[in-house]
Amino acid sequence: MKKIINAPEDVVREALRGVERAHPELTVDHANRVVARGDAPVSDKVGLISGGGSGHEPMHGGFVGPGMLDAACAGEVFTSPTPDQMLAATKQVDGGAGVLHIVKNYTGDVLNFEMAADLARAEGIEVEAVVIDDDVAVQDSTYTAGRRGVGGTVLVEKLCGAAAEERRSLADVAQLCRDVNASVRSMGIALTSCTVPAAGKPTFELAEDEMEVGIGIHGEPGRERRKLGTAHEIAAALVDPVAQDLALENGDRVLAFVNGMGGTPLIELYLLFDEVGALLDERGVTIERSLVGPYITSLEMAGASVTLLRLNDDLVRLWDAPVKTPGLRWGA
Amino acid sequence: MKKIINAPEDVVREALRGVERAHPELTVDHANRVVARGDAPVSDKVGLISGGGSGHEPMHGGFVGPGMLDAACAGEVFTSPTPDQMLAATKQVDGGAGVLHIVKNYTGDVLNFEMAADLARAEGIEVEAVVIDDDVAVQDSTYTAGRRGVGGTVLVEKLCGAAAEERRSLADVAQLCRDVNASVRSMGIALTSCTVPAAGKPTFELAEDEMEVGIGIHGEPGRERRKLGTAHEIAAALVDPVAQDLALENGDRVLAFVNGMGGTPLIELYLLFDEVGALLDERGVTIERSLVGPYITSLEMAGASVTLLRLNDDLVRLWDAPVKTPGLRWGA
Repeated sequence: MKKIINAPEDVVREALRGVERAHPELTVDHANRVVARGDAPVSDKVGLISGGGSGHEPMHGGFVGPGMLDAACAGEVFTSPTPDQMLAATKQVDGGAGVLHIVKNYTGDVLNFEMAADLARAEGIEVEAVVIDDDVAVQDSTYTAGRRGVGGTVLVEKLCGAAAEERRSLADVAQLCRDVNASVRSMGIALTSCTVPAAGKPTFELAEDEMEVGIGIHGEPGRERRKLGTAHEIAAALVDPVAQDLALENGDRVLAFVNGMGGTPLIELYLLFDEVGALLDERGVTIERSLVGPYITSLEMAGASVTLLRLNDDLVRLWDAPVKTPGLRWGA
Repeated sequence: MKKIINAPEDVVREALRGVERAHPELTVDHANRVVARGDAPVSDKVGLISGGGSGHEPMHGGFVGPGMLDAACAGEVFTSPTPDQMLAATKQVDGGAGVLHIVKNYTGDVLNFEMAADLARAEGIEVEAVVIDDDVAVQDSTYTAGRRGVGGTVLVEKLCGAAAEERRSLADVAQLCRDVNASVRSMGIALTSCTVPAAGKPTFELAEDEMEVGIGIHGEPGRERRKLGTAHEIAAALVDPVAQDLALENGDRVLAFVNGMGGTPLIELYLLFDEVGALLDERGVTIERSLVGPYITSLEMAGASVTLLRLNDDLVRLWDAPVKTPGLRWGA
């Protein structure tokens, strides 16, 4: 295992110290491993929190800031945070307008967020929770009943964050969250495995000429192993099932997000983005907004995922709204 | 070789199509492989261009936009662009106030930019060139007479871009560029090699327990191979020579930049950033600004570099000024 770490058991704790040092506009509650906006809670704004296992950076801690999440809680690598952490985050960001939990669909995350929501409600905080399940690759999986939550989560966090900044109500932001989740689909491939620090060896093995189609963000299996294809073939293997599941039609407008899993260089992601665009051209689908880069990763895994979100004018406006986080940042 | 590509010889060409597709605010001259601001040339603003071999993304094409570069030209992977490309970029961004060439110190880049500057001057364009040589690892190297240009280049492009937006003169922006280059130092380590697509095999081999200290951004050798150390040891191996060369003293203020070489996940970069910060604390040096992430990469190489820039009030202001590029983006 070749990593820039001190000891496997200290990785998350020490990385959070680095986050705190690098981003003075954020606060880090080290006991609860919660990264929050320095100005939390924001009065009368719906508080948005998410969280999950570490190893997917910049998600979620890198998406904390004005226009996106109010706080994120970090579990150990590829391990759900505890209800206590989620409760601490919820209490920290409650500005009186309630708190939305954005939950990726993994069994541990879902159970723990449910328990945290119950605990928060018992303390008088209004909480809604939406489970994100945008991965079309598999129905159930190693860690999931139902579809997994993957790249769509990044878009959900941005869009709902913008809606919360507009002071929409908790019910409205939660409904937007469900609407976006219903309009977004993803699928990914892996060219290599990744190594969880505490495990010390790769999660799985792939032959030099193989790729895993439909990979999960913890290295869990997808649909099949196939011979490593060209970028054109990879794009088709990802775009076709996503477009079909989303029932994309001639004239539809999308946000196209090509995500890197961690170890794949940006030059390959742009090359893949062009192939994705060409396939969407053929379908008469217009890319109105785009995102290219490593935003929801699996440590150093080589691979990529494609996420497509059907756009409407409201979503375009929310996407363009200012955001100021370590991982996504634009506008005022 | 496991890469998301079609054919090795098409990687740069096809990736530039993806850049064009993803960033409608930029233009791509495919014949000359020049990425430029869509509104270039900007009247009465000094035009800033850079360029070099591909494989270091987001540098340089990802740093084109308001507040940073006006254009960048892309060579093949780890191969200098030609003088013709640089001349085309120079002509495209000349808004009447002259053009600054920001040149990383590699022999091919330096020679070709010199030729391009001569050709541009012959066409009546005022050109200044500044060579960036911030890498303290080695004096001469495989591709270089004198020190190599590495992470400092990212900071130079941001700071000089901001100065050009303020409509400083060509002489002033060039002097700032030299001043910043004199105030910035870098050093990197590699945990793995990278594979140039056209070569099809790793540039070098490192044993499972080894790291290359002082690595170049093309995989060229550094100072020595050492047993893979802890993050704390790695931080010391990078910070000590950089701080010493920069003659950092108690009370100095710096911008600290922990850069990923491509294959190292963000969680490790933040962990390393904390170690760097702790070492600077010991020296009484204050981190006033920071940057953490993969900004000047070596394809999928695992590793990191540390860049320290001595700050003053003018540089802090220029750093904070708005920038709107695919790779760095903040403010208005």
